[in-house]
Parts: sequence; C-alpha cells; structure tokens
Amino acid sequence: MNPLLLEIRRNPLLWLLAFVPVVLAAQKLKPEAHTLLFVLSVLAIVPLAGLLSHATESVAAKTGDAVGGLLNATLGNLTELVIALTALQAGQYVLVKASIAGSIVTNTLFVLGASFLLGGLKHHLQEYNRVGARTQAGMLFLATIALLVPSAVSEADAAADAAFTQKLSVGLAVLLIVAYGLGMLFSLKTHREVFAGAEHGEADEAPWPIALALATLAGVTVLVALVSEVFVESVQKAAEVFGMTPAFVGFIVVALVGGAAEMGSAFSGARKNRLDLSVGIALGSAAQIALFVAPVLVLFSYVMGPTPMNLQFWPGAVVMMLIASLTAVLVTNSGRSAWFVGVLVLMVYLIFATTLYLLPPRVA
Amino acid sequence: MNPLLLEIRRNPLLWLLAFVPVVLAAQKLKPEAHTLLFVLSVLAIVPLAGLLSHATESVAAKTGDAVGGLLNATLGNLTELVIALTALQAGQYVLVKASIAGSIVTNTLFVLGASFLLGGLKHHLQEYNRVGARTQAGMLFLATIALLVPSAVSEADAAADAAFTQKLSVGLAVLLIVAYGLGMLFSLKTHREVFAGAEHGEADEAPWPIALALATLAGVTVLVALVSEVFVESVQKAAEVFGMTPAFVGFIVVALVGGAAEMGSAFSGARKNRLDLSVGIALGSAAQIALFVAPVLVLFSYVMGPTPMNLQFWPGAVVMMLIASLTAVLVTNSGRSAWFVGVLVLMVYLIFATTLYLLPPRVA
Amino acid sequence: MNPLLLEIRRNPLLWLLAFVPVVLAAQKLKPEAHTLLFVLSVLAIVPLAGLLSHATESVAAKTGDAVGGLLNATLGNLTELVIALTALQAGQYVLVKASIAGSIVTNTLFVLGASFLLGGLKHHLQEYNRVGARTQAGMLFLATIALLVPSAVSEADAAADAAFTQKLSVGLAVLLIVAYGLGMLFSLKTHREVFAGAEHGEADEAPWPIALALATLAGVTVLVALVSEVFVESVQKAAEVFGMTPAFVGFIVVALVGGAAEMGSAFSGARKNRLDLSVGIALGSAAQIALFVAPVLVLFSYVMGPTPMNLQFWPGAVVMMLIASLTAVLVTNSGRSAWFVGVLVLMVYLIFATTLYLLPPRVA
Repeated sequence: MNPLLLEIRRNPLLWLLAFVPVVLAAQKLKPEAHTLLFVLSVLAIVPLAGLLSHATESVAAKTGDAVGGLLNATLGNLTELVIALTALQAGQYVLVKASIAGSIVTNTLFVLGASFLLGGLKHHLQEYNRVGARTQAGMLFLATIALLVPSAVSEADAAADAAFTQKLSVGLAVLLIVAYGLGMLFSLKTHREVFAGAEHGEADEAPWPIALALATLAGVTVLVALVSEVFVESVQKAAEVFGMTPAFVGFIVVALVGGAAEMGSAFSGARKNRLDLSVGIALGSAAQIALFVAPVLVLFSYVMGPTPMNLQFWPGAVVMMLIASLTAVLVTNSGRSAWFVGVLVLMVYLIFATTLYLLPPRVA
Repeated sequence: MNPLLLEIRRNPLLWLLAFVPVVLAAQKLKPEAHTLLFVLSVLAIVPLAGLLSHATESVAAKTGDAVGGLLNATLGNLTELVIALTALQAGQYVLVKASIAGSIVTNTLFVLGASFLLGGLKHHLQEYNRVGARTQAGMLFLATIALLVPSAVSEADAAADAAFTQKLSVGLAVLLIVAYGLGMLFSLKTHREVFAGAEHGEADEAPWPIALALATLAGVTVLVALVSEVFVESVQKAAEVFGMTPAFVGFIVVALVGGAAEMGSAFSGARKNRLDLSVGIALGSAAQIALFVAPVLVLFSYVMGPTPMNLQFWPGAVVMMLIASLTAVLVTNSGRSAWFVGVLVLMVYLIFATTLYLLPPRVA
Repeated sequence: MNPLLLEIRRNPLLWLLAFVPVVLAAQKLKPEAHTLLFVLSVLAIVPLAGLLSHATESVAAKTGDAVGGLLNATLGNLTELVIALTALQAGQYVLVKASIAGSIVTNTLFVLGASFLLGGLKHHLQEYNRVGARTQAGMLFLATIALLVPSAVSEADAAADAAFTQKLSVGLAVLLIVAYGLGMLFSLKTHREVFAGAEHGEADEAPWPIALALATLAGVTVLVALVSEVFVESVQKAAEVFGMTPAFVGFIVVALVGGAAEMGSAFSGARKNRLDLSVGIALGSAAQIALFVAPVLVLFSYVMGPTPMNLQFWPGAVVMMLIASLTAVLVTNSGRSAWFVGVLVLMVYLIFATTLYLLPPRVA
C-alpha cells in the first residue's frame, strides 16, 4: 500500500487534511466569512505542516547525512517560512515580525517547558546532552542580540533614522546567515560526535521512498502556500471577532499553528525519556527561525515585498525574545530536568501570553 | 521555666522587646515626634521579628513535615507582610512597592553576599547544595520577569493604560501564587530528597510547646501590626530629618529592619560552614517575597486598600531586581564559594544603595 | 648585546618604532595633515605598546610575585591609560568614554572570540582553568553593573540631574577601585593556588635586567604620551576623511590600536593550546579597564580635566558592555572551547561593529 495513504490511515491528525479542499472552496464561495475561513485554514494547516515535516525527514534520510542534515536544517520550518512569505507579499510586516518573534518565544518557552513538564510527570529526573543544547542556546542568544540591536539603537538615538535601520538590518541578516551556516558546519561536520545524542532517533518511522517524499514536499508546499493566503487574509478580522489583539494572534496563534507538527514529536520524545530529541526540536527550531528564517525574509523583502523589511521589532517583543533565550541558556546549563523546571519555563510563557492577551488592540 | 522567658534571657537581641511598650506609649504622648517614633519603632520591630520567626519554626516543627514546610513558607516573611499590609491600608503604595523590591534585593545581594563573605573569612572554600539554590534562583528569576513585564510594557507602549496594567497585575499575581504553590509541592513533596541539605538544621534549638508557639505567633503578630503603624507613619518624615531619600528608606531601611532576625540565622549558618542554610534563607526569603508576598498584596489591595494596587514598579527598581536575580543565578551556579564571591555580590548591593542614597528626593 | 636591541631585532613589529620620530617630526612640520598624522601615530603606538607591555612584565618578574602581580595589574593597560589621559586633558570626554567602553567590548568579545577561533582551528577541543575565568568574568559583570547604573537612572528619572550623576560617579569609582584591590588580594594572595594555570607561562621569554626594564618603562611611557597627543588631535578629523563615525573610531579603532600588543600574546597562546593565557589576557584586560582605568580617569578628571568627568555613557555603549560581559560569563562557564564558540563570540563583536559603523555621525 502507498506509504502516504498508510500514514494518513494511521495518523488521525492527518484526517484533518479533508479541510484543505474545504477551505479552498469556502474562500471562493464565501470570501467575506473571515471567522469561518480562519478556523478552516487553521484546521487545514496543522496536518499539512505534519506531512511537510515527515516528507522533509524522509528526503533527509535518503540523501545521506550531510545533505540530509542541511535539508532538515533549512526546510525544518518550511511551514512558518511559507506563512511568513505569504504575509510578506501582502505587505503585512507587523504580522511577519510578530510571527518571527512568536515562533522563537513559543519554541523556546512553550515547547521546551511543556516537554520538561510532560517528561517530568512520567520520569523523576531526566538527563540530556547538554553540549548540544548549549550550542543551540548559544546560537539563539547570539541571534537575539542581533535582533535587539536595531530596536535598541533606534530607541536610544534620535539620529538612527529609517535608512540606517534598513542598512543595519541587511548587514545583520548577512551575519546571521553566515553564523547559521558555520553552525551547521560545526554540528554536522567538524564536531558531529559531540551532538551524537541529539541527532539520533529522529527517524522514528521507516522513511518514505524518495520519489514520494519529493513529490509530497513539492505538492504540500504549494497547498500550504494556498491555505496560508486564506489564513493571512482572514486572521486579523477573525481575531477581532474572538476578542484577541493582533499582537496575541501574531505571537501566539500563528506560532502554535505553524509548529503544531513539531510539537507533537517533541512531546512524545519527552514522554519516551528522549529529552535530547525534545530539546533539539525546541531550541533547534527557535535558532533556525532566528538565524535563518528571519534574515531570509529581510533579504526576500527586497524582491517580493512592496517595500524592504527591516529587523526593528516592537520593544516588548525584543524583551520577550531576550528573556526567552536567556531562560533557555540558564535552564539547559545543567543538562538535567524535573517537572518543576518545565513549570518555571511554562510560567514565563504564560506571563508573556497573558500580557499580549490583555494588551489594548491599537498596538502591534 | 517558660521557654519564651528562657529564650528572652539567653538572646540579648530580645531585650529590645522593652521598646515595644515604649514606642506605643510614645505614640500616644508625642504623636508629632516623628524621628523619635521612627527610631523606637525600628528598635521594637527587630526583636518582634525574631520572636515571630522562632514561633513559626516551632509550630512548623510540631505539625509535621508537609504542613510545617507550608507554614514556614507562608509565614516566614510575616513581619515584612504585616509592615506592607499596614502601609497598604494607609494607601502608601510607593512605600509598599519600594519595600517589596528592597526586600528582594536585600535578601538576594546583602544576605547572600554577607553570608559568603563571613563564611569565606573563616573557611577557605565552602560548598553547598547547588540544586536547591538553583531551584530558588530559578523561581526568583521567574518572579522578576513577572514583575518587570508591567513596567516594561507601560514604558514601551502608549496604549498600555492604567486599566490594562491593573488587569495584568491581577493575572500575574495569580500566576505567581500558582508557581509558588507548585514550587512547594516540588521541594516539600515530589523531589524533597534533592533539597535534603537545605532543609536540614533549621531546627537548631529545641522547639517550643505548640500552645506557647501558637500564642506567641498570634500575640506577636498583633504587636508587629501595632508597631508597624507607628513605623509607616513616621518613616517618611524621619527620613527627611536624616537626609535620606524615600527611595532609600523603602528599599534599604525597611528591608533591613524587617529581615534582621533572618539575617542573624543566615550569617551564623555561614560561620558554622553550613552555607546551605544561609543560601536557603537568602534566596528562599527573596523568592517568597516575590512569588507570595507581592501577589498577595496585590489581591489584598482590592479588599483593604483605598484603590487597587498594581505591579508596576519604578524602572530603576525593576533594573535592580533583575540584576539581583541574575547575580543570584550566576553566583549559585557552581555550588562553591570563597570570600571574594561575597565581596562581588556585596559590591552590587553597595552600588545600588549608593545610587538610592544619592538620588534626589522627588523620586520614589 | 643589549636585550632591548636584541628584542627589536627579533621582533619585526618593533621595526615600526621608526615611525615614532617620524610622527613627532611630521606634527611639527605638517600640523594640518590630520589623516597622515593619524596613520603615523597608529603605526607608532603599536610597537610602543608592545615594548611597554614587555617592560612591565620584566619589572614584575624581578620584583617578586606579590609586587610583580600588582605591577602587572596596574600597568598592564598603561597604553590605554596614557591615551585616555591625553584625551582627558584635551577635554575630549566623548572619546575617553568611547575608548573605555570600546576597550572592554574589544577585549571581551574580539580578543576572547578570536583566541577561541584561532585555537579551535588547530585543536579540536580546548580546556582552560574555569575558576580563574569565572572570577574575572564576575568582576567584569560587577563593573558593567556599576557603569550602567548612572546611565540607567538618568534615563529613567527626570530628577537625576548632573550633580547627582557626578556624585554617583565618584562614589562608584571608589567602590570599583576597592573591588579591584580586593580582587588582587584574592587572586595574588589568599587564593592564588586556584589561579595556578592562568598565571603560568606569561614569562615566555627571559626578562630584561631591572635597570633596563625600568628605563624602558619610563622612556616609552613618555613617548606614548607624546604620540597619543598627536593621535587624539588627529583622530576625529581623520575619521571623517575615512568615512567612519566618531563612535566607531572611539569604540573600535582606539581599542584595537591600544591593545595590539596584548592581542598578539593572546592569539599565540591560543595557538599553543594555552587558552588559560588567552582568557586571562582578554578578561583580565577588560576587567582592569572597567575596575581600574575607568574609575582612575574619573578621579583624575578632578585634577587634570577642564571639568569633572562622570560615568554616564551613551545608552548604546551600556547595552554593548552589558551584553559583552554577559557573553563572557556564559561562554567561560564550561571551561571548554571549540572553534564555533569563537565564531559566536566574534559574531556578537561584528554585530556591534557593524552597528557603530553604520550609525549616523551626529551621535557619539
């Protein structure tokens, strides 16, 4: 039997794929039903993100370690990238930036914290490879510094005008991509033995044949792009209906929708006492968004967007990203975890979510 | 002989109890002698705080581990709580907030630093249970983040108005109390073996009979409340006379007066090479004030205060709390100490105290 | 043969000494050729700094451990001190402060990062004495806090006027010098065995005779002072010609010129797998500038400068110093290094350098 169909039969989450044609049809028939379109697009993106992630891993498993690692590293957050590119094309830079910041914070605090908590509820004390975690937390910390500089300087300094911020953003984007590339060289090539624990075990299931995986990758990416368009168009209107602020939607909802598939893997890894996997997914995704997705969006905005996008974030988002990465650095320092560590990390996330939920709507 | 009288005879500090009737009489006779009343109330609060702490420990020792730990954890900073409640009732929110921030900073930097220094002058290198210290430093760090968010968002954002700050403060207060409760569950129940070293040895002396302890607890709390009223009324006027700024008084003087008894235990523990005890008192008190006393005050302000109190602090206080908790996290990371570590921590405290002492008076 | 001449013959860098008379002559003949004078003075300061550092070490080696350590600690950044004193006398406080902040950031990020990178390219994993590194990183962190307080309070508080900032700066300067003195007592006297690895091996070459070393010390200091005068006078004008902002010049160029000799030792130590030496130079220099040079300049400004100098820095510089010292604390925590750690630290430096390079010129 076709492994794709087998996967769909086995994984009830994928039954949500039925919403993909529904949302596309609904958009044609009822383009004004924003709330309905929003809900349908969320339900459709979640299984697509799951398929995309499975297809990427299958291609990676087939193409050998170095290329595979590279693929996983660049396509691992393909869903987030496609959603952000759709918003970029629509000129919704506030949404793009909120979803970047939100993905970083959600992966670092929610995925990491919930993994520690879920794992800790089952296992008294858990250990993981702290060297790998430290490297990823270090990369994340570096990226946060890069993302805070444009905002900090613009705040502090009247002379820092838009032209300066734009030039600086491009410069920082290039630096971040270089750091990301060197980080892959480090973890996949020169010091791969140090990361041994973390890599292991991601290929939990038998990978698909390469042709199927590639076809799925291409086809699902197109579907994600189509559904993302509905999502981006409807999200702001729907948020108003639900009484959510745009900041909350960009930060929390988009990040949770885009990362749902990965979260499943992280949580199940934690329950199986394989925290290396969970920590790797949480910090790896956050680092990838900060060091790869965010700078790529800045550079792409010159080609695709109505105007160039810069890296100047809302100051509150900068503070949240900084605290999130500092929390990751401090928490992963010991390489050990118990359930209360998860509670502490989740509490930081809840503090941020509460703040964003209550924030008056005029602000992005 | 009555253990209470025995304690009073043995402990010269308790002779200061003579000032309790003196201050209450002086208030009736000379209500305008603010400086005198301030000095007398300070001299009266110090021994009361000592008695209160001893009575709490005795009740805790009698009621078994779980309930006892709970009692110690909730009543451990009863003096600070009563002083703050008195100030709350008088609507002196600036003093309440300064004393919260000041207690956190004083416990984290002054008590911890002086313990390291005093212990280190006698012992070349000292070791302590770093797992317990880490958990408390982690809780403190979490609380500091919660306390900084309302101030940071209000600074960053014109749309963040008073209603938003108030709602946010209530939400954060609930989150902090939940985190505090889970932290007790963790350290007293599910992972108590990890904290073994820290719990040990607090019951240095024979505990009092339960009836005496409960009566002392009740009676002394009333006395503290009465004296606190004199203290809160006189402190601002007296500060002017001594040439101290209100910020300095709230931050430094109130915190030192309220915590004098605990400081004695922490320092004597350090001299006896039982740093676990000292670190536990310092970080435990700070965490308790941040995660329990501060949110309880916010919630009580709806019942007792003239208007609800929020968690928005003076930005300088936020910076000091953040640096204090970061210092605690970094310093307790190794679980080892020498005298110079104490000097470094105390220096940070002196930097803050100098700043507050020199700050022009218009500011709170 | 005279060891000074021998040294000059052996070390090609010292051939640049020929530029010392050239720059002094050029100043007399062409006082308006700012760009030329700037380039010549840079070329002349680099070898003088090398000689000064060698002479200091020789005197230190001859005078026994305690006095020698003291000498090394106080005169180790003599070049930076002389340059800053020259700028102080000229009333160029913006340049003085930029060079203080720049030296701290350059030593912490550039020297440390490049040492890790250069060492890591040759050795797979490197270890160093983390206790020594931690103490120095701790001192640096303390100093950064002291340096950020005046700026933070002035930002946050309208009531913090110039008189307050000035008084606070003097108070903090005294605290920093006391902390520095106690730190030397700790590392040279009471706990010197802990720092064993770090001290070792600095006396790589045979020390000079004491008379020669003292004469060199005196003579070269005078020459550095003379050349510094040319440098300070020409640097701003030359920066304009090169299209560099004053912030970039003070922060990056002055720090690199003043520290060139030490950087050579740090990098060669890293290549020889003696990271203790490199980390000691990088963090030791940064700590010395923050805890000794900066406060000494504040106190000297009362005697030498046109008006007293305070410790209030440009907010951007404060953020950079804070991030630099936090990076040092986090990175040296493990006592192990690989090439990518160096890349991460260098990236933070490049982010700062890019920002300063692009910053519009009106700002200091």
